[in-house]
This record gives sequence, C-alpha cells and structure tokens, in this order.
Amino acid sequence: MDINSLTPELMHFLGQAAYAQLGEFESLARAVSTAPTLSAKEGLSNAAARALSKHHGLVSEIRRRGSEPDTAMAPFVAGLERFRQQTQGGDWHELLLSCYLTGGLLDDFFIRLSDGLPRDVGSRISGLLAEDSGTSVLVHELQAAIAKDPALGSRLAMWGRRLVGDTLLVARSAMPKCAEQTPEDSRIEPVFTDLIAAHTRRMDGLGLTA
Amino acid sequence: MDINSLTPELMHFLGQAAYAQLGEFESLARAVSTAPTLSAKEGLSNAAARALSKHHGLVSEIRRRGSEPDTAMAPFVAGLERFRQQTQGGDWHELLLSCYLTGGLLDDFFIRLSDGLPRDVGSRISGLLAEDSGTSVLVHELQAAIAKDPALGSRLAMWGRRLVGDTLLVARSAMPKCAEQTPEDSRIEPVFTDLIAAHTRRMDGLGLTA
Repeated sequence: MDINSLTPELMHFLGQAAYAQLGEFESLARAVSTAPTLSAKEGLSNAAARALSKHHGLVSEIRRRGSEPDTAMAPFVAGLERFRQQTQGGDWHELLLSCYLTGGLLDDFFIRLSDGLPRDVGSRISGLLAEDSGTSVLVHELQAAIAKDPALGSRLAMWGRRLVGDTLLVARSAMPKCAEQTPEDSRIEPVFTDLIAAHTRRMDGLGLTA
Repeated sequence: MDINSLTPELMHFLGQAAYAQLGEFESLARAVSTAPTLSAKEGLSNAAARALSKHHGLVSEIRRRGSEPDTAMAPFVAGLERFRQQTQGGDWHELLLSCYLTGGLLDDFFIRLSDGLPRDVGSRISGLLAEDSGTSVLVHELQAAIAKDPALGSRLAMWGRRLVGDTLLVARSAMPKCAEQTPEDSRIEPVFTDLIAAHTRRMDGLGLTA
C-alpha cells in the first residue's frame, strides 16, 4: 500500500504536473474571458494567476535539473489536450465546475504522488500544489447560480459525475506500469478512494449529488 | 505642455489602466491557448503572468483607496472590449503583434499619464507598468515567422499601422476633456509624438515599416 512504489520517474512527474497546471490556467483564462460580470472576472483572474504560478514553480523544478520544460511536457500534450477538450463543457457554468473539480482532483493526485519523490523536491512540490488555488470565487458563482436555477443544479450534478471519470482516467495514465506479479489495482485503489472522497466533499459543498 | 494638466482623476486612471492590463492578459492567454509550439506556449504564459501581475498591482491600488475594482473598471468595459475585439487579428501572428504593439503603447501611455498623479502612487504605478512585460518571446516568434515568409511581413506591417491608430484612439479617450480656451491637441501632441516614436522602434525591431 506504499505510494512510493507508484511514483513515476521525477521528470515524468514534473512534465505532466506542469502541463496539467498550464491546462488548468488555460481553462480559467477562458472563464475570465467569458465571465458575465466584472467581479467574477476579477476573482477568476486571481485563480488563473495561481494556476500559472504553480505551473511556473514546476517549470523551475524542471529547469533546476537542467531539462527544458517543453521537452519534459511534450509526452503529455496529446493526452492532456484531449482531456481539456472533453472537459471544457457547453457553457460558462460547466466550465467553472470543470476548473473547480478537475483542478482540485489533479492537485490532490499530484500531491499524493509527490510523497514518493525524493524528500527535498517532494516537499517543495506538495507545498506548491497545496497553495490556495483561489477557487472560492468558483464555489461562490456556482452556488449562486444553482440556488437560482434547480435545473442547472441537476445538469451540473451529471456533468460533475462525468468529470470525475475523465479526470481519474487521465490521472491513472500518469502512473507507472507495475511489475506483473503485483496487481497494480490493489495498490492504486486506496489512493483513488481518497481522491474520490475529496471530490465528493467538493460536490457536497456545491449542493450537488456526487 | 505639462502633462499634469492632462492627468485624469486618480480612480479614473486606475480603473482604465487596470482593465487595459486585464485585456492584455486575456489576449496573451488566447495566444497561449493557440500557440503552435510548446516553447512559444511557455514563453507566452510568462508574458500573460506579467500582464496579470500588473493588473493585480493596479487592483491593489484601487482597493487601497477603499474602492471596489469592478466599480472602478466598469466605465471602461465597453470601450476596451470593443478595442480588444478590433485588435484580435485574424490569426496567431496578428494576435501576437497586437499583444506586443498595443500592450507596449498602452504601457507607455499610462506611464506618461502617471507622471501627473500624486507622487507616491504615481511612482509606484510607473514602476509597476515599466516592469519587464516578458514580450521578448513575442519579438522572437514574430521575427522568425517574418524571416520565413516575406508576405507575412507585408501583411503584419499593414496590421501594425492599423493597430497604432486604434490604440491611440482608445488612449485618447482616456484623457480628460480640457477647458475650452486651451486647444487640447497642442498639449497632447508631444505625448503622442513620443508614443509613436516608441511604437516605430518596436516596428523597426521586427523589420516592419511603421
């Protein structure tokens, strides 16, 4: 049950985590551009800045090791772009829910994986990823919209259930192949159980059924 | 010829400058999302972070005075949104040129206007706006593309001439109406002459005829 044995090679981890944060930034920036009010735009721009700051922190870790960020991120572009396309949603509220849920789930996931990295880099990265994501504005906007329109709540609850599936799949693809004699699912399961519990708390906080 | 007499009321200045930086950020974020290579994406994300950091610096100045940023920015939304629509360009290179030229011109413009603000806030703001915008990536990408395709150079030269016109108009609209007895054009002219000279240097640096 030790997560260390599930930890991918460091540069693999950094490249994927860095590109995931860049994707989160791009989605938040799209939410900024399409925000219906200035105060939402303002709050979202803060969340976008935080995703970008996490991205740049991960890029610094890549450079610190003498690698180029684009080389490190390249293997993950196709998969994460597809993921981002699938999770953009059909309107602004679906996009907000996606930023909130997939961003939160992937942060949690990479924080868990970072436990298995060498201690110095692992603790720097978990500290970086655990920084406030500035997503209270997302929660606030979603709660207000759901309170006004129960039909939106039902639609977003379904959308949230789809998002968790897509996100767990993309997270799963980040994990190394395990040796044949150890059924990998039994070791990954407790990690994913925790991720889903945190996801469920986020859904609950919005008044949505996970 | 004293720019002080051209300086708008402080909150007017801060609201417009803050929204202009947010627009610059949104355009750069769009350029990040549509970048054809990872290294361009990476460099542009840095430029986007810097525009956002200037925006948040201006928002802090608004808050420091007990005002709400959305209230301060609201009067400028329609004009600057229209400006941003007009200056998005038809493809990625036109968008890059727009980010570079309009961002540079508006930074210069607000730095000039900030000379007339109360000294403490004026010097903080000119320092903030004069920070490196991280636009060397824009210059690099544009130079490389123009070197490969002379037809693109001609098209971008025309696009640059149109951008300067649109940007000077939106800048002009930021200046206060002057008393009737003073022909305002005679006082604004030297400021605009300097702005155009800096614009011409940016065009020259790209090998484009201003």
